[in-house]
Amino acid sequence: MRAYRIAAIAGDGIGQEVLPEGLRVLEAAARRFDIDLSISRFDWASCDYYLQHGQMMPDNWFDTLRGFDAIYFGAVGMPDKVADHVSLWGSLLKFRRQFDQYVNLRPVRLLPGVPCPLANRQPGEIDFLVVRENTEGEYSAVGGRMFEGTERELVLQQAIFTRHGVDRILHHAFALAQSRPRKKLTAATKSNGIAVSMPYWDERVAAVAQHYPEVQWERQHVDILAARFVLQPDRFDVVVASNLFGDILSDLGPACTGTIGLAASANLNPERRFPSLFEPVHGSAPDIFGKNIANPIAMIWSGALMLDFLGRSQGPCRAAHDAIMRAIESVLLSGPLTADLGGRASTTELGQAIAAAV
Amino acid sequence: MRAYRIAAIAGDGIGQEVLPEGLRVLEAAARRFDIDLSISRFDWASCDYYLQHGQMMPDNWFDTLRGFDAIYFGAVGMPDKVADHVSLWGSLLKFRRQFDQYVNLRPVRLLPGVPCPLANRQPGEIDFLVVRENTEGEYSAVGGRMFEGTERELVLQQAIFTRHGVDRILHHAFALAQSRPRKKLTAATKSNGIAVSMPYWDERVAAVAQHYPEVQWERQHVDILAARFVLQPDRFDVVVASNLFGDILSDLGPACTGTIGLAASANLNPERRFPSLFEPVHGSAPDIFGKNIANPIAMIWSGALMLDFLGRSQGPCRAAHDAIMRAIESVLLSGPLTADLGGRASTTELGQAIAAAV
Ligand SMILES: CC(C)[C@H](C(=O)O)[C@@H](O)C(=O)O
Ligand SMILES: CC(C)[C@H](C(=O)O)[C@@H](O)C(=O)O
Repeated sequence: MRAYRIAAIAGDGIGQEVLPEGLRVLEAAARRFDIDLSISRFDWASCDYYLQHGQMMPDNWFDTLRGFDAIYFGAVGMPDKVADHVSLWGSLLKFRRQFDQYVNLRPVRLLPGVPCPLANRQPGEIDFLVVRENTEGEYSAVGGRMFEGTERELVLQQAIFTRHGVDRILHHAFALAQSRPRKKLTAATKSNGIAVSMPYWDERVAAVAQHYPEVQWERQHVDILAARFVLQPDRFDVVVASNLFGDILSDLGPACTGTIGLAASANLNPERRFPSLFEPVHGSAPDIFGKNIANPIAMIWSGALMLDFLGRSQGPCRAAHDAIMRAIESVLLSGPLTADLGGRASTTELGQAIAAAV
Repeated sequence: MRAYRIAAIAGDGIGQEVLPEGLRVLEAAARRFDIDLSISRFDWASCDYYLQHGQMMPDNWFDTLRGFDAIYFGAVGMPDKVADHVSLWGSLLKFRRQFDQYVNLRPVRLLPGVPCPLANRQPGEIDFLVVRENTEGEYSAVGGRMFEGTERELVLQQAIFTRHGVDRILHHAFALAQSRPRKKLTAATKSNGIAVSMPYWDERVAAVAQHYPEVQWERQHVDILAARFVLQPDRFDVVVASNLFGDILSDLGPACTGTIGLAASANLNPERRFPSLFEPVHGSAPDIFGKNIANPIAMIWSGALMLDFLGRSQGPCRAAHDAIMRAIESVLLSGPLTADLGGRASTTELGQAIAAAV
């Protein structure tokens, strides 16, 4: 069996602190389950690189990375050094689009030992997936200004939804729902207010649903859907959403389970034509960077998602994923814990403990 | 002093059940504080009207209503009878735009006696305002399809932000923040993903902020802002947002306080060139319509907002607003309560109790 080729990119801020712990746990899991990982580190896609080179990545980034099976990514952005839209559109958003990582998958799960901001919720009760479209829709730089600098100034912002882009994310989400015990799907919409794109989205949801007769599906307007994440988080199984709605819902979901600092995500190119990217949701957190107190669980959880994807949810990779998740859960209950969870351990100590538990 | 002229429109579903209770309480408050209200009822802006006439409102709706000081509105929409976008764009969204009700104001408050879905939150701890732009931005029917019916099909959706529209909502929100004890303002944005309109919004926030040096302001991306509604709802004072972001945040806020069924809203034309509109946030709730079990508090609270606006937060109208809010709070603690709050009272009984307490 050939090695899985992984490009490890720490990026900015706490990305540099959590990536080594993610790698430590991956390596422990690889040893235990006899998985062959070949890991190469890159120090670009960071604001420091930008300050030296005037761009976030070298010109040949695409060819350099395209042969990898996956990118294991820390975080990007140091707004005091480089404007966010420059650092993000120059790295992370480029990966998502040019490597056609059209599925952004974010598990929302109430973990044992993690204080839940919602009253009276038990681990196991909240366990769903947000499936976000990751390449088109509302995230766009298309549009412009008119009457600039005058009182008549106005801005047009284009959102672009394609049949290709909408259908493939819906198929992915419906297939995922079909594979899960509850077989439920909720599609976020706002067709009562956004009058061109969202009615189209609704139509495609209904059309794609025909292919998955076993899946019980519904559409929810994003305003009430957000409210229900708080009020009835147990009712969700797979939630599929456009780029913007998925962005909001996939921060809100982990907030509801108290795991915003622990949440993992996968940016998938399901066809494996290009590398997929696995990253914590938390970002670079410049405010706590440099103290070695960041919680590495999101990075480690993202590594588990990566192994699961690489091994197509089978064999040693699946076993390694499960072992990492069990190790996270057991350390959450017994410690050591970082400050965000009320403990005093360092990033390194938590990473070591999880690696030891794998 | 001349009478305040109020157009009362029940609309659809539970709008028809809660409006009479709202009027009952308004009339009680008007008697007690000697306020002259002249109330006219209209039975259009409803799906039944649509089924008879093929449109939601008579052709002369604009001239009929424009002389009123306020519209006291129940709810609209019966998706089994009329598609939502037809009923909404044919009534409520027409009012908002043609009467230039550019401020949508939604208080988020944890009320005594209302079970809060967040753990460990006390009444008084959560008390902020969502100020939503209500006429432009992402809510638009501008755009279209191309390559229709083929695999290349795509949809363009335009969002439109004007200097006029953005600046006036920001001025309104900053002035409101300035008038409040905490003087804090949070502007929702997403300029790291939506690359034309949201950077413009950010620029205007910074420009308008110059006029309010006492206000402590910040920008937050809407994804993390939504998360913070759950995690740190006590940190907010005034939250200003575009049409779409305000829509989401003003459902999410009341969800966090357990008041999604109780939340009130004001659609304001602050210059009073046109009538302003006051409505519960809950909508027509066809599933519980006809049983007289709907909770009328949102309608009653909206009536209190209306009196406050009519009297410019002064004199008898302000006193009436305060008396209604106190009456709501006392009935929430002592009952009778409707089923949504664990009681057995009818809509009418709850309305009568609040009217008696005013
Ligand atoms: C940083 C930002 C551009 C990004 C997004 O909005 O996609 C982030 O919020 C995320 O969810 O990965
Ligand atoms: C019904 C719908 C069009 C409306 C909106 O999105 O504005 C509602 O959700 C609201 O918030 O008043």
